[in-house]
Amino acid sequence: MGKALIIGAGGVASVVVHKCCQNPDVFEEILIASRTVSKCDALKEKLQGGKTKISTAQLDADNTEEIVALINKFKPDIVINVALPYQDLTIMDACLAAKVDYLDTANYEPIDTAKFEYSWQWAYREKFKEAGITAVLGCGFDPGVTGVFSAYAMKHYFDEIKQIDILDANAGDHGYPFATNFNPEINIREVTANGSYFENGEFIETEPMSIKRVYNFPEIGDKDMYLLHHEEMESLALNINGIKKIRFWMTFSERYLTHLKVLENVGMTSIEPIEFDGKQIVPLQFLKAVLPDPASLGPRTKGKTNIGCIYQGTKDGQPKNYYVYNVCDHEECYKEVGSQAISYTTGVPAMIGAMMVLTGKWKKPGVFNVEEFDPDPFMEQLNKQGLPWKEDFNPSLVD
Amino acid sequence: MGKALIIGAGGVASVVVHKCCQNPDVFEEILIASRTVSKCDALKEKLQGGKTKISTAQLDADNTEEIVALINKFKPDIVINVALPYQDLTIMDACLAAKVDYLDTANYEPIDTAKFEYSWQWAYREKFKEAGITAVLGCGFDPGVTGVFSAYAMKHYFDEIKQIDILDANAGDHGYPFATNFNPEINIREVTANGSYFENGEFIETEPMSIKRVYNFPEIGDKDMYLLHHEEMESLALNINGIKKIRFWMTFSERYLTHLKVLENVGMTSIEPIEFDGKQIVPLQFLKAVLPDPASLGPRTKGKTNIGCIYQGTKDGQPKNYYVYNVCDHEECYKEVGSQAISYTTGVPAMIGAMMVLTGKWKKPGVFNVEEFDPDPFMEQLNKQGLPWKEDFNPSLVD
Repeated sequence: MGKALIIGAGGVASVVVHKCCQNPDVFEEILIASRTVSKCDALKEKLQGGKTKISTAQLDADNTEEIVALINKFKPDIVINVALPYQDLTIMDACLAAKVDYLDTANYEPIDTAKFEYSWQWAYREKFKEAGITAVLGCGFDPGVTGVFSAYAMKHYFDEIKQIDILDANAGDHGYPFATNFNPEINIREVTANGSYFENGEFIETEPMSIKRVYNFPEIGDKDMYLLHHEEMESLALNINGIKKIRFWMTFSERYLTHLKVLENVGMTSIEPIEFDGKQIVPLQFLKAVLPDPASLGPRTKGKTNIGCIYQGTKDGQPKNYYVYNVCDHEECYKEVGSQAISYTTGVPAMIGAMMVLTGKWKKPGVFNVEEFDPDPFMEQLNKQGLPWKEDFNPSLVD
Repeated sequence: MGKALIIGAGGVASVVVHKCCQNPDVFEEILIASRTVSKCDALKEKLQGGKTKISTAQLDADNTEEIVALINKFKPDIVINVALPYQDLTIMDACLAAKVDYLDTANYEPIDTAKFEYSWQWAYREKFKEAGITAVLGCGFDPGVTGVFSAYAMKHYFDEIKQIDILDANAGDHGYPFATNFNPEINIREVTANGSYFENGEFIETEPMSIKRVYNFPEIGDKDMYLLHHEEMESLALNINGIKKIRFWMTFSERYLTHLKVLENVGMTSIEPIEFDGKQIVPLQFLKAVLPDPASLGPRTKGKTNIGCIYQGTKDGQPKNYYVYNVCDHEECYKEVGSQAISYTTGVPAMIGAMMVLTGKWKKPGVFNVEEFDPDPFMEQLNKQGLPWKEDFNPSLVD
């Protein structure tokens, strides 16, 4: 059916590539491009021989002209951006220049300030519309599936949604006393940044990790979860009519937070270089080098993730609650695609989103968040592609 | 009265120099020698102008010949070794060669294995005896004053001591979330090493930090304390006739141990170098560079230390208990000598020990631990030199 240019060769990209190759009728040909071409070649080596034709290329995704040249050569029907969030804009610029559809999994961030907001990418709305091409923003799990869940809830179960609680639990155990699932710098940013939630038309900031609840997650059990800021709240606040309140919750263990706090206390998470042995060394960079490589966690992580949304609203004048979630098993993911659930739950939705665009189901000119498309074909694919979802019409609510 | 060569220019050496200068009748002349002569000069700068004549010299204390040459030039009556424990033997060799009395505050350790035992230094007994010179080993607070306390208890209050509990509490607060009072490498070694205690003629090893008690320390209050191995148990087991049991306890806060545990968990206390940016870096060395400089803690440490011994035994056929201890205030120490109580409680006894040797009260050929000398003149000086002691004949016992 079509050709996809996949930019990136990390954990998520690897899942996207695996899943594209499982759907060769849609993804007839893929080109994997990243700064480190050897990583792309390793993926090709592993997956070639199936129906999907795979090629690789070296690419500096900071360089728009280089991306344009590669697009013009390969002529993809879509660009799947699973590179770094810093590179969203250069890649969108290239898609505009070459008039090809675009999809990513995380909002653009300037490299020097973590903002987690869509403003930069929403500024491309008119340009994409005029060019007649589609951009799908934030099509991982959260953001991504959480938006699809919201559109699905709105379409089928509610006249009005008043409150959304997004719950992201990871009960995986890698067996190390401490390690971070991806770049520790990003984990540390996440828990040291202010939280925020949406209420009555505005975002309210909270002290980092100051709001905590215990929730009994299906198939996982009781977990401590903390209110964080998360980018999909911004688009849901805009796209879910009549919404009054949105909160995002993520689980962290006591142990994890203690480790992070100590490392912060002693200065090991600082990005201010210190003088050591005549050289300037950033403590956080050194910490990264001491900690287990996130890529090494895959084969040893056991347990499950549970990500979903609880909706409170009304239907036919009656109050109604609805919880929809996916449970994903780290070991099963690793067995299937060689990555654990954190990468899997991001990569599979990216592939499905690209499938939606290639099959014409999510194709309209402009820049969109996922909840702006028809959720039904996506929900159907979640069940087929390894992320089945479950419903509960009488869930425990988060107080 | 005499001349002392003081080797070392760290926190303890600084206290020794200050206290020698407060006793110019005994210490008429001192020579401060260390690898970094600028540190010696700084001490001289600060203290010259009093009655004690001060000079300085550059010295590599690993090099016996260099020490001998310096001794032959300065002709001291005693060498006070407050350098590193790794250098005890080279300095003892030099004292033997130059026939001059010797005193230190901590037992010799090979640089690559922490042993905390006297075997290497006791092997010099015959040589010192033949040379007609005195070596006083371990004359800080613990070991040091704890041995003097023991000799004093034995001389005045007991026919037989059956049990000694040595209690070392530091309730100082430097206001940092985490810092170590001296070289963090040594702190970390201390809490990660097996503990041990003496019972019925043998030493029994325990898992690191596995035996904990809460003790209500006079003038400090309740503190968590943990059973550790400590070198003076070895000499007390030998020198206190009839002793059945000796234990050493040190206080650590929950917070301190959590920080240390996390740093160990993530690998920051490891002495195995890792590859970083093309260089081999030892994580513990990098951690040291990130942590506050121990020398910077002095001016900001508040609170007190309490170090003492609880004796259980018999007198005139009756059971008898006795607790003798010193309480020392960090801020008062800093005001007096520019160092906090950790250095003060080690440096003052070293000066008193040297005073004992110079005044002939502790002078006999051979190598001795402090409890082998008459405790009375030393106990008298403790009260005069800033470490007054208190007695309790009905103390709480450690169960």
